[in-house]
Amino acid sequence: MTTGLRARKKEATRETIADATLALACEVGPDVVTVEQIAEAADVSPRTFFNYFGSKEDALFSMRPGRLEEMLATLQERPDDEPSLDALRAALVVSTDSFTEQAERWSRRLRLVREHPYLLSNYLATYSDIEDALVRVLAQRLGADPDRDLSPKLFVGVAVAALRIAVNHWQEAETTRSLEELVDEAFTTLTTGLEGE
Amino acid sequence: MTTGLRARKKEATRETIADATLALACEVGPDVVTVEQIAEAADVSPRTFFNYFGSKEDALFSMRPGRLEEMLATLQERPDDEPSLDALRAALVVSTDSFTEQAERWSRRLRLVREHPYLLSNYLATYSDIEDALVRVLAQRLGADPDRDLSPKLFVGVAVAALRIAVNHWQEAETTRSLEELVDEAFTTLTTGLEGE
Repeated sequence: MTTGLRARKKEATRETIADATLALACEVGPDVVTVEQIAEAADVSPRTFFNYFGSKEDALFSMRPGRLEEMLATLQERPDDEPSLDALRAALVVSTDSFTEQAERWSRRLRLVREHPYLLSNYLATYSDIEDALVRVLAQRLGADPDRDLSPKLFVGVAVAALRIAVNHWQEAETTRSLEELVDEAFTTLTTGLEGE
Repeated sequence: MTTGLRARKKEATRETIADATLALACEVGPDVVTVEQIAEAADVSPRTFFNYFGSKEDALFSMRPGRLEEMLATLQERPDDEPSLDALRAALVVSTDSFTEQAERWSRRLRLVREHPYLLSNYLATYSDIEDALVRVLAQRLGADPDRDLSPKLFVGVAVAALRIAVNHWQEAETTRSLEELVDEAFTTLTTGLEGE
């Protein structure tokens, strides 16, 4: 129980710091705000900030620890004979939970990226870390070489593109549909609809 | 003939400036090199530089004028009953010509982006301009709303992702296959292989 409590406290501190970073980045600008200001707002020392995050940008976009591992484990546990895109969809859906829970935060993050294009590389680095990790696990499933074969990269790239497009649509189009529905439509179109529409 | 000659001269000047930008960005760094240095190397005035390009980054990544229009016209001219992905593939293949012709340039550009991540937003802006324009034309074909419907965004996003993955694979994997072959494999997998593999 002690470790459970400690882990929850750590997670709470991490979230407080991430929230303070997002709030101050929106208020004074992500390029202007300092780690000292963020630490003060989160009521921690700058040193504690750096125990959790490598940089302001990292604190803005990085995934909750364990989330990527959860996605990879989900992919690994899918039945061997399941088509790659269905298996990837199951793995990626693990992350849509957090998109929906955190709708407000995501919309502010995406606005920051639109208004400060230099943040794009930090934002996309998150996607590309997910992609690299998923390619390795999928290649293993397919008995393919993650570096020399095109198909694992293609399946993962297309699945992540579908997720990204569903998320952007959900944020930007005036839609009352849930993210789950949109991700569902995107993958159904991909797996059944591409040949003839 | 006079306009033909003038257009060719303009195109040659544009290419000289773009080449000088790429060479100097690789040599001294894209963040360090100045427009003055680039203009001098290209034997033009800084003012002439800005007649062709809005910035150094623009000169590094922007498409040849007319290329996007060519892609859009190709998409518009495809038969109405052709599946979207096949029509998009035909439009995007217009651009692989220039990737292949310019293999050396592309590999240096992609290396610059890897070594200077801040360039990523400029590099991706090219893709996202292509995407936005293609979504509008495809939506028209499908009788869909480019802003409110998911499917035009999804088809274009997935097609461009397939192209991007084929290009990266061609550049980064040790492959002797041509870009055409890789794009072909990518789209064939997308249109026929996704359901069952």
